[in-house]
Amino acid sequence: MKVAVLGFGTVGKGVYDMLLASPTLEAGSVLVRTGKCDAPFKTDSIDAICADKSIDAVAEVMGGIEPAFSYCAAALKAGKHVVTSNKALVAAKGIELNTLARENNAGFLFSAACGGAVPFLHNLELARLSDEIISLGGILNGTTNFMLDKMQSEGMDYADVLKEAQALGYAEADPTADVTGLDALRKIMLGCAVAYDMLPNEGLLNEGIDSLSADDVKHFQSKGLTCRLLAKGGKVGDKLYAYVQPVLVKADAPECAVKKNFNMAKYLGKNSGQIVLMGQGAGRYPTASAVVRDLECLSYGQRVMMHTECRQVKADNGGCVCSYYVRMPKMYADSFELECAENEGDNVRAVTKSISVKDMHEKVKAIRASGASVFFAELS
Amino acid sequence: MKVAVLGFGTVGKGVYDMLLASPTLEAGSVLVRTGKCDAPFKTDSIDAICADKSIDAVAEVMGGIEPAFSYCAAALKAGKHVVTSNKALVAAKGIELNTLARENNAGFLFSAACGGAVPFLHNLELARLSDEIISLGGILNGTTNFMLDKMQSEGMDYADVLKEAQALGYAEADPTADVTGLDALRKIMLGCAVAYDMLPNEGLLNEGIDSLSADDVKHFQSKGLTCRLLAKGGKVGDKLYAYVQPVLVKADAPECAVKKNFNMAKYLGKNSGQIVLMGQGAGRYPTASAVVRDLECLSYGQRVMMHTECRQVKADNGGCVCSYYVRMPKMYADSFELECAENEGDNVRAVTKSISVKDMHEKVKAIRASGASVFFAELS
Repeated sequence: MKVAVLGFGTVGKGVYDMLLASPTLEAGSVLVRTGKCDAPFKTDSIDAICADKSIDAVAEVMGGIEPAFSYCAAALKAGKHVVTSNKALVAAKGIELNTLARENNAGFLFSAACGGAVPFLHNLELARLSDEIISLGGILNGTTNFMLDKMQSEGMDYADVLKEAQALGYAEADPTADVTGLDALRKIMLGCAVAYDMLPNEGLLNEGIDSLSADDVKHFQSKGLTCRLLAKGGKVGDKLYAYVQPVLVKADAPECAVKKNFNMAKYLGKNSGQIVLMGQGAGRYPTASAVVRDLECLSYGQRVMMHTECRQVKADNGGCVCSYYVRMPKMYADSFELECAENEGDNVRAVTKSISVKDMHEKVKAIRASGASVFFAELS
Repeated sequence: MKVAVLGFGTVGKGVYDMLLASPTLEAGSVLVRTGKCDAPFKTDSIDAICADKSIDAVAEVMGGIEPAFSYCAAALKAGKHVVTSNKALVAAKGIELNTLARENNAGFLFSAACGGAVPFLHNLELARLSDEIISLGGILNGTTNFMLDKMQSEGMDYADVLKEAQALGYAEADPTADVTGLDALRKIMLGCAVAYDMLPNEGLLNEGIDSLSADDVKHFQSKGLTCRLLAKGGKVGDKLYAYVQPVLVKADAPECAVKKNFNMAKYLGKNSGQIVLMGQGAGRYPTASAVVRDLECLSYGQRVMMHTECRQVKADNGGCVCSYYVRMPKMYADSFELECAENEGDNVRAVTKSISVKDMHEKVKAIRASGASVFFAELS
């Protein structure tokens, strides 16, 4: 199988290297921006790639929605298979691309878009064919896991650890998508699409780690708890839930064993039981290895991981109930039904009674609207 | 795809249930022993299954080498795909069955033979196609992990925890294959065949947990260490190593998060980095889900997970070096170069200097030949 690569950034270079070294796959041309064709294997023409009958598949690793979407659509219309590591693209345009793939008898695989080297979506798709997926989720963002791990192992404050993550290239100059949980949310959206034929695009909730302080960490460490940012999805009846929020887990939870910028994804199958997968969630070769894995699946004959029935739905997080640790200004304590509370200066650290994920996120949003600083995390 | 099931024990019943419930697969007949055909879907004739043109694949879940081998060979010769959960069969006859599959244009998949529901061999095979597998291994036997977990969390002695494992159905009446590490060894043999085209059948070493005492556990717990039974395989130059032995790991190692009878398998890819997979390593539906996963892979077009080049080789564990915790009668202490030692009654608890896995296993074998009780475990 001969493969053209769309994009020649961190991941694109890794994919190209792996194609050159692969005994089973062949490297085609690489699409770069106009004016950047400084080597014979590079082209700036998607039309040339689409017209090249020797190309069987394209690997899209450009990121962003446009022009990635137009290029992938053109490739599919030309009968080329498409694999992509682009979660924003699949979250926004996955159903459209999947339909195009089916119409043109081409493949569309995107397991590299969630979990990097961790073969999560691939195994989830295989599992769902003959098993019932009860729930899915995990630590799907390596940047925030790196930051949480540092804050907890070294007592660092949020601002300092963010600077370090940026210096190491783990966090972008604009870290918003990572630290607010949006990146993890996009990944759980893809997981839901694969597991349930439902791609949620409304009603989604994401709380990140950008309100976490070193004092919060000290407090819950004194209770033997560790904070992780978890994405969760699942189906209750015909309703889908999907959200991201910090969770405080006990020391012997497998989540605690996820260090640095590693990812951990899991699903609970009715027959298989809990399946947990861990590995590097980002980086040149880990992500490239996932792109190449999808190409090998195409070679085997796999064509899609999103089924024809897949449709956009509104997520409903009103049925998911848990109790929360919450740190907020004292004056807001009566916004919640509390199990217990400790005053600390102007703040209160409290544990809520059971409350729905939806209500909790909404209440905190309302409090924050007044300018107050609040951190909250599910108690597992 | 219509699937006949060979065997109707714990796993066979699970596979049959899953086939009945599957929207993508169809249940064919079930092969049972002569005289046990008490339902219309059962047959005692492998010839009838092989002659039935509506059957596309057989799932062999009988266990043992014969008649499983003859039945699988007959099915492959009749052009049926074969999937199996039978590690003893694949360890002994895998290359032969794989050749038969290729000759008859049929598929032969066996990812259910290692790790139960954990999709280890499947992902290893996908990874090896375009990545270099540096090493593989993990906790591949749930029975011994259950026993180790109990001994360490409840201070139970070996004999009592074995009885409990048998009462719960985790250990067989004859637990030898589990407690001596032979079962885990067979699984790492399959892993090596998938990763390296080398199925080791000589030079293999397995040390289990049958020499572990409650006092050993107390001792290494006082040092903050946890014992796990690990299988390891890998290639150094053109030499393959493959062995099973107890390993003492630190509290924050991911192996410590593997509780009860769970399995954890991992591989280190040059590009992917470390990939870790956890789940139920045995049981009706977990194992059945792995058999069904292989059937779904057949539907996608995958045919084999062992390549044509795969050959039997002698393992060489002389190049693997580590230091060991060892408990033995004092009089044998000078058999080893020791880093440190503590006397305890007639015994000594010592830490060896670096020694090869091969030398360690051989020295202990020689000491045991004199009737002495010795426990040893790698220090990770």
